[in-house]
Amino acid sequence: MGVKLGILGLGTVGTGTVQLIQDCAGRHPLLQDVEIYRVGVRSPDKPRAVKLPTSVFTTDLAGIVTDPQVDIVVEVIGGLEPARSLILKAIEHGKHVVTANKAVISRFGDEIFTAANQAGVYVMLEAAVGGGIPVIQPLKQSLSVNRIHAVTGIVNGTTNYILTRMQTEGSSFDDVLADAQRLGYAEADPTADVDGLDAADKIAILASLAFAGRIKLQDVYCEGIRQVSKTDITYADKLGFVIKLLAIAKTVNPPPISPSGYLSVRVHPTLVPKAHPLASINGVYNAILIEGEPIQQGMFFGPGAGAGPTASAVSSDILHLVAALKSSTATPNPLLTCAHQDYCQIAPIEELVTRFYARFLTKDQPGVIGKLGTCFGKYGVSLESVVQTGFQGELAEIVVVTHDVREGDFRQALAEIRTLETVDSIPSLLRVL
Amino acid sequence: MGVKLGILGLGTVGTGTVQLIQDCAGRHPLLQDVEIYRVGVRSPDKPRAVKLPTSVFTTDLAGIVTDPQVDIVVEVIGGLEPARSLILKAIEHGKHVVTANKAVISRFGDEIFTAANQAGVYVMLEAAVGGGIPVIQPLKQSLSVNRIHAVTGIVNGTTNYILTRMQTEGSSFDDVLADAQRLGYAEADPTADVDGLDAADKIAILASLAFAGRIKLQDVYCEGIRQVSKTDITYADKLGFVIKLLAIAKTVNPPPISPSGYLSVRVHPTLVPKAHPLASINGVYNAILIEGEPIQQGMFFGPGAGAGPTASAVSSDILHLVAALKSSTATPNPLLTCAHQDYCQIAPIEELVTRFYARFLTKDQPGVIGKLGTCFGKYGVSLESVVQTGFQGELAEIVVVTHDVREGDFRQALAEIRTLETVDSIPSLLRVL
Repeated sequence: MGVKLGILGLGTVGTGTVQLIQDCAGRHPLLQDVEIYRVGVRSPDKPRAVKLPTSVFTTDLAGIVTDPQVDIVVEVIGGLEPARSLILKAIEHGKHVVTANKAVISRFGDEIFTAANQAGVYVMLEAAVGGGIPVIQPLKQSLSVNRIHAVTGIVNGTTNYILTRMQTEGSSFDDVLADAQRLGYAEADPTADVDGLDAADKIAILASLAFAGRIKLQDVYCEGIRQVSKTDITYADKLGFVIKLLAIAKTVNPPPISPSGYLSVRVHPTLVPKAHPLASINGVYNAILIEGEPIQQGMFFGPGAGAGPTASAVSSDILHLVAALKSSTATPNPLLTCAHQDYCQIAPIEELVTRFYARFLTKDQPGVIGKLGTCFGKYGVSLESVVQTGFQGELAEIVVVTHDVREGDFRQALAEIRTLETVDSIPSLLRVL
Repeated sequence: MGVKLGILGLGTVGTGTVQLIQDCAGRHPLLQDVEIYRVGVRSPDKPRAVKLPTSVFTTDLAGIVTDPQVDIVVEVIGGLEPARSLILKAIEHGKHVVTANKAVISRFGDEIFTAANQAGVYVMLEAAVGGGIPVIQPLKQSLSVNRIHAVTGIVNGTTNYILTRMQTEGSSFDDVLADAQRLGYAEADPTADVDGLDAADKIAILASLAFAGRIKLQDVYCEGIRQVSKTDITYADKLGFVIKLLAIAKTVNPPPISPSGYLSVRVHPTLVPKAHPLASINGVYNAILIEGEPIQQGMFFGPGAGAGPTASAVSSDILHLVAALKSSTATPNPLLTCAHQDYCQIAPIEELVTRFYARFLTKDQPGVIGKLGTCFGKYGVSLESVVQTGFQGELAEIVVVTHDVREGDFRQALAEIRTLETVDSIPSLLRVL
């Protein structure tokens, strides 16, 4: 009478999930109804950290997702293919799906959820964002009575680890990255993390849930942390900020009340005021801040990755499905589905209104700040603070923080400033929360 | 075809909930199926911040909970009676119940959940703890795949506001309390808040959900913040701590795996290391940190009270019930019920193993620290740090922080220290996280 799982993949997350289910005393009693029926792996004979009957293993992953005995398919192989095709085939065969695959969901969520809604099955994805932190279900359930205005997250542990060490040790990006790779906190190819692509996948998913509309991943503006220098971290600190890689999805004023709103969705290094709740999230931790009406604020915090936390999230999805199957709902529970079908409209980055931090290297001549100020004024950029900070060789270093300004206007001002004879270069340009 | 609400009380929370439901564009579409059918108030003719047909109002609260038309009773009158009796009568008449009433649930949860399980109805209580922060549902659902080891919370906004101001302004408890009362952050009778009783209600509820057993409120050890002095806040700061009123429920080692574990459940002012996630929770904010296996950590943060956040929580419970009613479950959804019936066993406070902070006033004589140390050693208390901090008039002030020690042993040592001729008094005694 158990609910039968077909697990695709037995890597770190799959192993953690099997361990949790096999060792279920002291956990929710419904987990006792779960049977690990099939596990699809590449090498059935490989030694494993978990004990399972030989008959459970198979190399035939397509056979699992079409097996009439399987109730729930747990996709933890990662990557785009064959994960996408297996998920779609599982749905076609009436299986509920649990996946930890942010890359597949952020790119193919459209076809996956359309197929799931047609087939009347659930696709659960708690583990795709924020490790073990329950944030997907709260967004689908409890928080959905709110009109969400903004989701702001530190959703990539690797970059937060690197930025935290740069901050505390005064080290350079390259040095900390190399050390993080040595310690296993960063991949040999760190692109997905340090260039913000992983965070972009995650904010696309969070935005879709928070604003009840689909998101085209290519609309998400994405800038990584390679350009963040220890110089900027030091200046930010003096000005009362820390630098974090934020993933932000926000309604563009006035907050629309239609389900498919006009949004700004972006990932970029950001100066965060030290008193802000996200400023104290350090190391490999993740945190997601939700702002809305009438809740005001809610923040979720925890380790953003790792076998244990991710297994907790995958298992919580399994638990939700077992509960739904056990209470034999006549129609799908609307708090577990992703029913929205419209696309959210995403504003181009030029339309963003934000504060900026910029660092200039100029000739050491009187009147330079005046010239910068005149040029900014021409494009409607007003300055919150201007600090002549010191010298780099012969050149004077000037740091400005602007008031809120339209990004397009600010960039026009910068283009003109670059033509000034007294300006050598603009080594840094960062947004300010 | 709407789901009919009978709302008991139209104070701050009731009004916020009605406003949210009446203004439902841009929220979860299921809220459109909710009908505000009856609102029970004392004075139907009183001017209200919300517009409702006169026919909705009634002074007959018992009539609402027995009305066959009512599907869900929303109890937001607060206080013990008639809230308890009305909730029980509603259950008896087959109504699902949403309540924000921590006092009733922490005292009468036993009879309420027993009645609800017998009647096959749900009693939802998201708003009872942590304002709008979704923490009750995550504990019942996503987090319940974990073996929880500890729940540690700042769950009372008033005391956190007072302690934060004492910390930042160097003011005394009495001065800040008076000002907080003037500003409306503390009640005219602040007992429930400052003596920790409100926090005790909340940790009893959280512990019950986290450890899947019932909790006797009188077993919860409770100490408020009246004795916290600005002197101690200053010393704590120097030693790397902030002082917070923590509500803690924790398994006593070894972590038991039976559902009704052996627990330490308590509320007391606590020295929290500055790097701890709870240390940076300031002002009226609440935060609840959950530790367990395999999730490691998860923290939930947000405003702990207020009409908006609380209305968000009440409405999210209504949403869960509407979803359950709409998907016409044959049997109750086990992730919405509170099925546990055993009582957790609570360890007496003497058995607690913790670090302590203590401040002594002694005669200014050589060898005093040695005498303290000898006395501590006799009872197995080892010291992490000893600081002779200064003088109060003729008396020397000595602050110690211990290593982990059994509370009973520590108190025996203190009793003997009090008899020392060189010791004048022990003005402060606080636990350290």
